Amino acid sequence: MTSQLDDVLAHVDAGLEQSLERLYALLRIKSISTDPAYAAECERAARWIVDELLTIGFDASARPTPGHPVVVAHGPEQNGPHVLFYAHYDVQPVDPVELWHSDPFEPQLKTDANGRKIIVARGASDDKGQMMTFIEACRAWQAVTGALPVKVSLMLEGEEESGGKNLPPFMEANRDELSADIALVCDTDMWDRQTPSITTMLRGLVAEEIEITCANKDLHSGMFGNAARNPNQVLAEIIASLRAPDGSVTLPGFYDDVAEISPALKAQWEGLGFDEQAFLGEAGLSVPAGEQSRSVLEMLWARPTCEINGMIGGYTGDGFKTVIPAKASAKISFRLVSGMQPDKIRAAFRAHVQSMIPADCSVTFHAHGGSPAITVPDDGVHLRQALAGLSGEWGKQAVITGSGGSIPVAGDFKRILGLDTLLIGFAHVDDQIHSPNEKYDFDSFHRGIRSWVRVLAALAQ
Amino acid sequence: MTSQLDDVLAHVDAGLEQSLERLYALLRIKSISTDPAYAAECERAARWIVDELLTIGFDASARPTPGHPVVVAHGPEQNGPHVLFYAHYDVQPVDPVELWHSDPFEPQLKTDANGRKIIVARGASDDKGQMMTFIEACRAWQAVTGALPVKVSLMLEGEEESGGKNLPPFMEANRDELSADIALVCDTDMWDRQTPSITTMLRGLVAEEIEITCANKDLHSGMFGNAARNPNQVLAEIIASLRAPDGSVTLPGFYDDVAEISPALKAQWEGLGFDEQAFLGEAGLSVPAGEQSRSVLEMLWARPTCEINGMIGGYTGDGFKTVIPAKASAKISFRLVSGMQPDKIRAAFRAHVQSMIPADCSVTFHAHGGSPAITVPDDGVHLRQALAGLSGEWGKQAVITGSGGSIPVAGDFKRILGLDTLLIGFAHVDDQIHSPNEKYDFDSFHRGIRSWVRVLAALAQ
Repeated sequence: MTSQLDDVLAHVDAGLEQSLERLYALLRIKSISTDPAYAAECERAARWIVDELLTIGFDASARPTPGHPVVVAHGPEQNGPHVLFYAHYDVQPVDPVELWHSDPFEPQLKTDANGRKIIVARGASDDKGQMMTFIEACRAWQAVTGALPVKVSLMLEGEEESGGKNLPPFMEANRDELSADIALVCDTDMWDRQTPSITTMLRGLVAEEIEITCANKDLHSGMFGNAARNPNQVLAEIIASLRAPDGSVTLPGFYDDVAEISPALKAQWEGLGFDEQAFLGEAGLSVPAGEQSRSVLEMLWARPTCEINGMIGGYTGDGFKTVIPAKASAKISFRLVSGMQPDKIRAAFRAHVQSMIPADCSVTFHAHGGSPAITVPDDGVHLRQALAGLSGEWGKQAVITGSGGSIPVAGDFKRILGLDTLLIGFAHVDDQIHSPNEKYDFDSFHRGIRSWVRVLAALAQ
Repeated sequence: MTSQLDDVLAHVDAGLEQSLERLYALLRIKSISTDPAYAAECERAARWIVDELLTIGFDASARPTPGHPVVVAHGPEQNGPHVLFYAHYDVQPVDPVELWHSDPFEPQLKTDANGRKIIVARGASDDKGQMMTFIEACRAWQAVTGALPVKVSLMLEGEEESGGKNLPPFMEANRDELSADIALVCDTDMWDRQTPSITTMLRGLVAEEIEITCANKDLHSGMFGNAARNPNQVLAEIIASLRAPDGSVTLPGFYDDVAEISPALKAQWEGLGFDEQAFLGEAGLSVPAGEQSRSVLEMLWARPTCEINGMIGGYTGDGFKTVIPAKASAKISFRLVSGMQPDKIRAAFRAHVQSMIPADCSVTFHAHGGSPAITVPDDGVHLRQALAGLSGEWGKQAVITGSGGSIPVAGDFKRILGLDTLLIGFAHVDDQIHSPNEKYDFDSFHRGIRSWVRVLAALAQ
C-alpha cells in the first residue's frame, strides 16, 4: 500500500487549496449551538457536511434529535477494523466580538508573530478544522483509490458546546447502527509542534452545586452578628475541609479506588520533558497546588482533584453592606481518575457536607453531571498502529499522553457502544479556542489531513 | 415646671393631626441620598427642615458639604445643659418598589394586623419619623412657653444612608459651633412596645475587603486542576480559620482588650427577660453561633464578632463552568466592643491573612472604614435624667441596653466634640427599615414627641 499511500499524500498536497476552501465554507456557517437564534445555522452546517460526505461515497444523513441534528455516515464495507469517527460541527459564541481582529465567521489566512500561517475563525480549531482533517483524508483516499483503507463511519455532533445532552440517548437508540471496532475522536492537542500524541487517559468529572441556608432572611450583622449562624462561614469551613495542607483531598475514601500508574507509563511521561515551571509560569504561578509528593503531570493526568469552581454569598457589589446572608452557595467539581466511581464520590461528598451543617441550617444539593475517567489500554493493536501512522507523518515518535480534562463522549463510547477511543488531534494550546481570534495552524490542517491518511492506512495493516 | 409640662403635653395631644401633616410633608420628599438622581430632593428636604426650624425660633441653615447639606440649628440660650440633637433626613432607596402596598413617598395611616395604627412610607421610621418626634417636641415647648427647657442645637445629616463620609470633616470644621454638653441621637428602638430604653453600648466596626489573586487568568479546571492554586480554596481556608469551633474569633490578640461587663450591668441585662429562642426563632434559627459560654445578649452587645458579609469567586451564574478563577474576594467585618482599637484589629487581621497567602499568590486589602465601640457611663447625671423623663411618659422604668450595631456618629461625637451620646429612639424591630412597606407606629410618633417633651424637661432639672 506504500505506493498508494504516497499517491494519496501527494493528492492531499496538490489539493490543499481546495481543501482549505471547503473548510472556509463550513467556517462561514454560524453554527453556535447554545444560542437558539442560530438553530437554522446549525441545521445548515449539518446539511453542508452531509452533502460533502455524499460526494465522497458515504451514505450520509442528518438525523433529528430534540436539539440539533447528528450527522451519521457510513463508508463502504472493507476488511480490517471498522472505525467510528467523532467530531462536532457546532461552535462557541463569539462574544466579546469587539476583541476579534477580523469577522469570526469570515475565515482568513494570516501570518502570526512567529511567522506561522494560521487560519483565523470561530471553530477553526474547535472543532471544524479538526473535523475536516479527517473528512479531507477520506476524500483523498477516495479520489486516488476509489475506496477507503478501512470501513469508516462518522458521527458528528452539533451540541458539544452546549451540553451535548441529546447525544447519549441518540447513541443508545442507534446502538446497532453505530457498532464498530474502535472510536476515533479529533478534538485534542498535539504534545508540541513537533510531536504528535494520542491521549489515552482522560479524567472523569463529578460536578455538584450546594446551597447552604441558615436564617430565613438576610440579617443585619450588627443586630445579629455572633448570635446568628453565617452561611458564608459554614460554606468556607466546608470548602476548607476538602483539602489537607499537603494538597490531598480529604474526602473519606477519596483515594480508595485510585491506582498508581505503571512504572512504564511513568517513565514515558518523565521522558516527555515536561517543563513544570514553564507550564505554571504561563499562568503566573510557580508552586504546584496538589499532592506535594507528585509531579505536575501526575497531578493533572493521574490524580483526582477537587476544585471550587464558584462560590458566592452575601453582598458582593461595590462598597460594603453589613449583612449576614440567609444563603451561600458553591459549585464544586471533582476530576476523577481510572477506577473511581462518580456515584460513590458524589455520595461521599454529600455525606461529608451534610455532617458539617449546623443543627438549624440546611443544605440542598444539585447534581451537574458525572462521568468516569477513561483509560485506553496502552498495549492495544489499534493504538500501536495509530501511533505508527502519526510517527510516520511527523518524523518523530508519537507519544501517549493523559489529559486532565474530561471528554464525555469517550465515556459514552465505552459505556453505550463498548468502544475504546483513540483521541488524536492536531490543535495547540495557543489556539484560543472559546476565545476571540480562535485559530488553527495551517500546518495542523495540512499535516492533520496527511496524518489521518496515514493512520487509516496503518489501521488497515 | 410640672404644670408647664402638662400644658406642653396637652398641646402635643391637641396638635397631633398637624404634627402628622408636617411629618407627611417631609416624607413626601424623595431624599434618597445614595442615588445622584435625587440630589435635588435631598436639598429640598434640608430646606424644608430649615424652614420648619425657623418657624419655631431656631437660628437654622442648610450648610453645604461635598455631598448633601447638613442642617444646623441653634435655639436660644438657656440655663442647664446644652444638648446637640442628631438625626438624619435622608432615606434608603425603595427597591423593590413592586413589593410596596402603597406609594413609598405618599404616606398613609393604616391599621396593621394587630389593630395598631401605623404610618407607612419610606423614612417613616428611619429616620424622618424619629427626627420629627424631637422637632415637634421643641415646637410644643416653644408654642406653650415661648422657650425651650434647655439650650438645644440640632445637626441633621443627609448622608447617613450613603456612607456619611462628609459629616466627620464637617464636625471637625465646625467644632466650636457644635460644642455642647451632651449629644442626643434619635435613631434606635424601644426595648419593647411598653418599655423605653436608652442605648449605652454600641459596638464599633472594622470593615475590610480582601481580594486574593492566584493565576494571571481564569484557568480550565480540567487542564489545571491540582496543579494551579485555586483562590476560592485559599479564601475559604482564610475565612474558616477566623472562627474556632467554640464560636470564638481566632485572630491573635482579638480579645486582649475586651473587658467583662460589670456584674451590675450583667444582672440588669438578665432582668430584661430577653427570650433567646424567640429572638433566634424570628430568624428561623435556634442555636446561637457565638462563644458558647455566653448569653445571646452578651454575644450581641458585649462581645466582638467577625462576620463574612460577602464572598465571591469563580463562576456563579446558572449551570456549571469548570473554571479555576484568577481571583476571589470577600467583605469581612469585625464588630468591636469597648476597649478594642480598630487599627490594631485591622492590622492583626491583615497580618493573619497575609500569613495564609501561598508563595505565588497575592492579596490586596481595601479598608471600608472603622470606628471604636461607644460606651456611655451608666452613672451619668444626664443619663439618669433622661431615663426618668422616659419612665414618666411610659409608666414603666426605662432600661439601659446595648446594641450590636454601630452608629458611627456617636463615635464622632466623642472623638471630635468630646461628647457622650444618649441614644433614645421609639422605633420597633418590625418597622421594616430599609425594606418595602417601612412603617412607624403611630404610637411611636405620638408618645415619642411626648417623651422628648419630658426628657427636655428632665435634663433641665
